[in-house]
Amino acid sequence: MLETDQLSLNIPDTTKPRVVIIGGGFGGINVAKKLKCEDFQIVLFDRQNYHGFWPLLYQVATAGLEPDAIAEPLRKMFGSDDYEDFHFRLVKVIGIDPVMKTVSTLVGNLPYDYLVVATGSKSNYFGNDQVKKYSFPLKQIPDALNLRSQFLQCFEQASMTNDPEIKQSLMNFVIVGGGPTGVELAGALAEMRKHILPTDYPGMNFNNMNIYLVEGMDRVLPPMSPQASAKTQQYLEELGIDIRLNTLVESYDGNIATLKGGEQIRAHTLIWAAGVAGAMIDGLPEEAMERGRILVNQYNQVLGLNNIFAIGDIAFMKTDEYPRGHPGVAQPAIQQGKLLAKNLPKLKRGRPMEPFKYYDKGSLAIVGRNRAVADLPNDRHMSGFFAWVVWLFVHIMFLVGFRNKLVVLSNWIYRFFTYERGTRLIIRPFVRKGDRAKRKFINKYNAE
Amino acid sequence: MLETDQLSLNIPDTTKPRVVIIGGGFGGINVAKKLKCEDFQIVLFDRQNYHGFWPLLYQVATAGLEPDAIAEPLRKMFGSDDYEDFHFRLVKVIGIDPVMKTVSTLVGNLPYDYLVVATGSKSNYFGNDQVKKYSFPLKQIPDALNLRSQFLQCFEQASMTNDPEIKQSLMNFVIVGGGPTGVELAGALAEMRKHILPTDYPGMNFNNMNIYLVEGMDRVLPPMSPQASAKTQQYLEELGIDIRLNTLVESYDGNIATLKGGEQIRAHTLIWAAGVAGAMIDGLPEEAMERGRILVNQYNQVLGLNNIFAIGDIAFMKTDEYPRGHPGVAQPAIQQGKLLAKNLPKLKRGRPMEPFKYYDKGSLAIVGRNRAVADLPNDRHMSGFFAWVVWLFVHIMFLVGFRNKLVVLSNWIYRFFTYERGTRLIIRPFVRKGDRAKRKFINKYNAE
Repeated sequence: MLETDQLSLNIPDTTKPRVVIIGGGFGGINVAKKLKCEDFQIVLFDRQNYHGFWPLLYQVATAGLEPDAIAEPLRKMFGSDDYEDFHFRLVKVIGIDPVMKTVSTLVGNLPYDYLVVATGSKSNYFGNDQVKKYSFPLKQIPDALNLRSQFLQCFEQASMTNDPEIKQSLMNFVIVGGGPTGVELAGALAEMRKHILPTDYPGMNFNNMNIYLVEGMDRVLPPMSPQASAKTQQYLEELGIDIRLNTLVESYDGNIATLKGGEQIRAHTLIWAAGVAGAMIDGLPEEAMERGRILVNQYNQVLGLNNIFAIGDIAFMKTDEYPRGHPGVAQPAIQQGKLLAKNLPKLKRGRPMEPFKYYDKGSLAIVGRNRAVADLPNDRHMSGFFAWVVWLFVHIMFLVGFRNKLVVLSNWIYRFFTYERGTRLIIRPFVRKGDRAKRKFINKYNAE
Repeated sequence: MLETDQLSLNIPDTTKPRVVIIGGGFGGINVAKKLKCEDFQIVLFDRQNYHGFWPLLYQVATAGLEPDAIAEPLRKMFGSDDYEDFHFRLVKVIGIDPVMKTVSTLVGNLPYDYLVVATGSKSNYFGNDQVKKYSFPLKQIPDALNLRSQFLQCFEQASMTNDPEIKQSLMNFVIVGGGPTGVELAGALAEMRKHILPTDYPGMNFNNMNIYLVEGMDRVLPPMSPQASAKTQQYLEELGIDIRLNTLVESYDGNIATLKGGEQIRAHTLIWAAGVAGAMIDGLPEEAMERGRILVNQYNQVLGLNNIFAIGDIAFMKTDEYPRGHPGVAQPAIQQGKLLAKNLPKLKRGRPMEPFKYYDKGSLAIVGRNRAVADLPNDRHMSGFFAWVVWLFVHIMFLVGFRNKLVVLSNWIYRFFTYERGTRLIIRPFVRKGDRAKRKFINKYNAE
């Protein structure tokens, strides 16, 4: 077997300043795309070899899309000649040394001139290890494939029991977190319950399938406007989703979810979409961290370090307008990435950099098959079918890669007219530490 | 956690004779599709919840297609009202009792009136456990996803080493078995080497990437005509594939493949497409087995058992024309399935059944991007671009599901003009016992 010490980063030496970017998400790729290779050598590290369009991840989880529709290989994105001094490495970064100005990875260290931390966020279980162990996250593509298999296997198993309690626990789905992920997942599940599952499982009564959406705040979609929240709640209730506001999940043992206040829900599946924390990296000074994020100034410079930048979800830029930082969505990351690509050459030439000003293009959420809510700039709001058309348009627009747009669009057209979700395949991704127990049982069914 | 004893098959009682089908492959689905639910209750068992179009599996392994393009959910196939007494169960069958006329599964037993064994075949390592442990099979969708990730990770790692020996072993790919799978996989890999990898990995020299195709017989595609074999060999050589005929792999330890005669090839990846054995089921009489298959008469009745049938790859029907049984491809399975669906009602009514006569529609294999070979009925042969068009047409035609046809066709049109393969995503399926060691290392790179 190869061992990590048999490998090396193997980045060519250069006389140009080297920009090292950690993370190929919305922030990272926008820095890399806009920087000129005449001015800089660009090195991108990621643990995945693709850039994911996470706003559509819930569609992978609900058998609507395959991963290739929402993910673009990073090497494909940077394959053209404009990027002759761009270097991608599929490797995990383990730390930073701001003094030595080096990044250390599993296969060696690399000196940088400018460092961009764009590591994004990871699921936050608020220290509840039991929930972490038994719940299903929805942050990465393997999570989504895992969840898709879990949903389908729950129905397969529900068709194989007469024990009412077991059957019910297999048909109860608890979604924790009423943000966009939770809301859109709940909506898609409700549509499956209505249009697909009854024909797939003729012997079963899907009036008994319950979808719980548990939110700690007093409304769904707290980041959006009260109008959007109200409409969304109405749509969700019309879809038959059981919404619990001002409610927290205290414990989940894989069978029973106990809510604050004592109510218990028997559920074989609990999806954790409740919180995120910055995907932190070792080596940054303590004083630069706050609430699991990295404090940056208006140029996205990490507090006290003028050649290290943090952008996107991991960055915490306090402004008068956003005292608690910018929303953890794609737009701030994209805009900060693009601006940084403009600022680095200025910094290099000793010119003044341009401060970041977030332009809020508004936010969108889809509920079910053909309804959405939208908050537009200047406090305008939209909902219903027209908002859905906008949602469709915006998401197709922002998908990376002509091919992805094609795949997603044709899928949606097909599904809009057939109600079909063609990807109802039970294919397990790698075993996650958490639900190994669950998996071991499930695999008994179809393992060699 | 649920345990298997908490589940039951849960098949409704019936006064109609019950047909139990084991396996949702080409044979099994054709029996189930053509049988009338007025006459029989139909129960289908499979360990997957989908029917796979295996002739295109190699395209999943080479980043050409996602699984949903070649797999159709079984419940979707049998969702219409024509199948009101059809019952699918996702469960592993562990044995048959011909005396008690019951099938036993992980979650209970089920009596049958007629039993159809359509379990197909599995990889045959001819008792070489070492090869089984370290090689990559290509029989199921998780295998293909696993192989896709393996290919890409080899290149990622090759880009991270200067050790010429390690680099070479990462860029050597040994395909064992010169049948359709091996040939089509080799061709697709060669096309990737030509059109995609050089732009994806600008720093690397892909003249050093070697694709070995090792075949034990004296020609590639032994099941096809000598003409087809000759043409195929010519095409493969034009694609720069290193063909070794009359050669066997004696051992493979994950690093070095030793061929009969002593030649050694350092290769990080060895794909085993050399042999298949019937996926046997416990409980059938010894005398009914030969060469890992089930002996059947001309009605596909298992030797000595008039209500148990075996069809497709697992069936061994000796005829004057096919003394060693029919070829292990889709057509015999499809034709035997359709005939059995006609014969079961006859058997039920005590009428004489119709003997099986294999109609050889010919066979096809694709080599690389736009060339193929074809053996047509009446000893006619075809090759080159036109044969490729026929191959395309036939494969689109036979794909199950309107949606699959659409997805595959649009993918191919897109790829034909762009040379692209959009699915270059490293996403690991569940860990296979075999290459856990390999995987553990690889996951160090991108695991949480």
